[in-house]
Amino acid sequence: MAAQTVASTTNPLTSVDLGPAAALSCRECGHRVALGPVFACEECFGPLEIAYDFSAYDTEDLRKRIEAGPANIWRYAPLLPVPADVAEKPNINPGWTKLVKADNLAGELGVTGGLYVKDDSGNPTHSFKDRVVAQALEAARVFGFTTLSCSSTGNLAGAVGAAAARAGFRSCVFIPHDLEQGKVVMAAVYGGELVGIEGNYDDVNRFCSELIGDPAGEGWGFVNVNLRPYYAEGSKTLAYEICEQLGWRLPDQLVVPIASGSQLTKIDKGLQELIKLGLVEDKPYKIFGAQAEGCSPVSVAFKAGQDVVRPQKPDTIAKSLAIGNPADGPYVLDIARRTGGAVEDVNDEQIVDAIKLLARTEGIFAETAGGVTVGVTRKLIENGVLDPTLTTVVLNTGDGLKTLDAVAGTGLTATIRPNLDSFREAGLV
Amino acid sequence: MAAQTVASTTNPLTSVDLGPAAALSCRECGHRVALGPVFACEECFGPLEIAYDFSAYDTEDLRKRIEAGPANIWRYAPLLPVPADVAEKPNINPGWTKLVKADNLAGELGVTGGLYVKDDSGNPTHSFKDRVVAQALEAARVFGFTTLSCSSTGNLAGAVGAAAARAGFRSCVFIPHDLEQGKVVMAAVYGGELVGIEGNYDDVNRFCSELIGDPAGEGWGFVNVNLRPYYAEGSKTLAYEICEQLGWRLPDQLVVPIASGSQLTKIDKGLQELIKLGLVEDKPYKIFGAQAEGCSPVSVAFKAGQDVVRPQKPDTIAKSLAIGNPADGPYVLDIARRTGGAVEDVNDEQIVDAIKLLARTEGIFAETAGGVTVGVTRKLIENGVLDPTLTTVVLNTGDGLKTLDAVAGTGLTATIRPNLDSFREAGLV
Repeated sequence: MAAQTVASTTNPLTSVDLGPAAALSCRECGHRVALGPVFACEECFGPLEIAYDFSAYDTEDLRKRIEAGPANIWRYAPLLPVPADVAEKPNINPGWTKLVKADNLAGELGVTGGLYVKDDSGNPTHSFKDRVVAQALEAARVFGFTTLSCSSTGNLAGAVGAAAARAGFRSCVFIPHDLEQGKVVMAAVYGGELVGIEGNYDDVNRFCSELIGDPAGEGWGFVNVNLRPYYAEGSKTLAYEICEQLGWRLPDQLVVPIASGSQLTKIDKGLQELIKLGLVEDKPYKIFGAQAEGCSPVSVAFKAGQDVVRPQKPDTIAKSLAIGNPADGPYVLDIARRTGGAVEDVNDEQIVDAIKLLARTEGIFAETAGGVTVGVTRKLIENGVLDPTLTTVVLNTGDGLKTLDAVAGTGLTATIRPNLDSFREAGLV
Repeated sequence: MAAQTVASTTNPLTSVDLGPAAALSCRECGHRVALGPVFACEECFGPLEIAYDFSAYDTEDLRKRIEAGPANIWRYAPLLPVPADVAEKPNINPGWTKLVKADNLAGELGVTGGLYVKDDSGNPTHSFKDRVVAQALEAARVFGFTTLSCSSTGNLAGAVGAAAARAGFRSCVFIPHDLEQGKVVMAAVYGGELVGIEGNYDDVNRFCSELIGDPAGEGWGFVNVNLRPYYAEGSKTLAYEICEQLGWRLPDQLVVPIASGSQLTKIDKGLQELIKLGLVEDKPYKIFGAQAEGCSPVSVAFKAGQDVVRPQKPDTIAKSLAIGNPADGPYVLDIARRTGGAVEDVNDEQIVDAIKLLARTEGIFAETAGGVTVGVTRKLIENGVLDPTLTTVVLNTGDGLKTLDAVAGTGLTATIRPNLDSFREAGLV
């Protein structure tokens, strides 16, 4: 195991300023170490996550401070592993995206308790990845990294490229060499290094792990590897925003997509923090996980009543969710069961139908991951699992412009000559 | 001339509630008529625009009301032709996009007085068109239209489709039949009618004018034709937001793209309103217009010292600005000259360079229109026309994801095998 991957209690980084972040704590054994660019426990190899010290906060002071903050994720700086002056540093400042009251969609799905879409396509590079990269970037700054890196198949590459450009970091992003041209352009336009790896996404990942342990990777912050504990916390901001936008109130039900599962677990963590801090009234909520049938390891385990997630080889149009061996799968199962939620999946046809349904009812053009959550919501209602009389929030984590192929069959209603007779013949009036 | 195109003093629509909008007023002869779905003066065929009654407003009350408003254009409802309760109606709620302090770009361009990018790619369908369509939609609601329509080659089609879907309107959008597949998909996904016209954009426009005067077009609101006076006012919100985001202060210089020229003239109108209402301190400001060399009728006229704009046949990658006969060209010339600004153009290569410059310095991926404004800013500084010691705001009105072809040459830095030796050979460390 390479020097930087496992935490050591002799880690020299004991006095970094990352706001309320107090230490790294192992999610398996609870072992605590100093804040540093490490992600696996030295005792049990479990995943490390941020432990906070929120003890000094007064609830109403904190609420006022948040409400007076900027219209981006930094309004929640007191609850994130970032310095207090984070909003003044160059960052692409994602977040505070729209929570859309989706009355038309609710009508179609028969939801009477209030249906909302949290639309993260409004972020700077149009996916929720801007939230997590923004955290990783601040950690990279504090730890003295000069290059920002990641393995990616799309959204993350663009988010890292953009964030690094604005913050003055070098970036070097690794992708499979045969990605679609559109995704390559999106990742390359910010001017960082973009390296194609001859192999699939697993090969890219393996290579990145090798690079972290090598002198060639010195000074490199891999947002989703050695900076992962910081990176992952960015998803908490989805929970904070949803509750604040509901008027500091917990929703009854949330439908969240599952790729690695990290986002779902951090949304739960964020909701629990709001309860403990007194910012929302404690009450039960259910978290539902959504997968594509072509990559449904967590859904399969959930339905089989298992605690173990058996890896799958992904085959789905929902490429941003296509992680066959999701690291946080077991934690997702635990949260879905503990909160009374569920994990469900939909097939590619249902994903496309759901993208079109959301577009035609609410004017929101979601990427395939949004088709997965809307499709799963519909299925869960039809199956009587999701209660349509309760307040429900569905996440859309990306933008339809990035997955145009999914709805490529959509096109012209009619083609006419430029005159009224031809128009009348088309039968549109 | 068809019944609905020219205002009549006997127009029955005298008591519609469009907030502070008091009447339609001819920009040429000043003739006033009642608010209605008309766009040309019955006296002189000049363009009609909204005349307001702001007389009841107290400056500080108004400022507080705006600041307490929603994080979208409806915070400025008291200054727009919309009902007071507009924020409660289903609308895609654009605006309040980021004003990015572009210090890296300023460094490259040598701007020392503060350089800002107003980034309208953050709107719901990722272009400034959402602002204008949102106004047209509210007018359509008040006038009892049930179908929303337009002629478009891209951004506008998506904005109309999305807004109509959410508001429960039928939509029917007309485009040239041979548009790029991506733009067709974007326009079609919201489920409205999308009609391809065998012909070019001029043929589409001509057909729409015919349809307005025909019974087949009854009940149809064409956002950029019979609703144009309302539609155009949406661009004022760019001026409002820029000033509020600067701390209720006028910038010294603005660089604005020119298609029809409407946006630039309405930004000037918005700035003048803020001055008259006392919301900003009066001081000189300069407005610069930006065109692509391949469609530069206003720039050519400006440089030749002419008042008349001679139409051009467009040939540029900046398709969203490719209006060869810009309706508001003469007004743009007047504003540029009156404020001490200028109109300049850049060629396709300079547009692409500027897109990349903005991406690599600020992490903002602009569409070609953003390449035009950034490129023109650079050229104006190099030519000594724009003063780099003054506060300058550059508009980016759209999203690079919609014009990927412009930077299609951008790609992989290197392709390697998944091992460290191959990585070292690539010379990236």
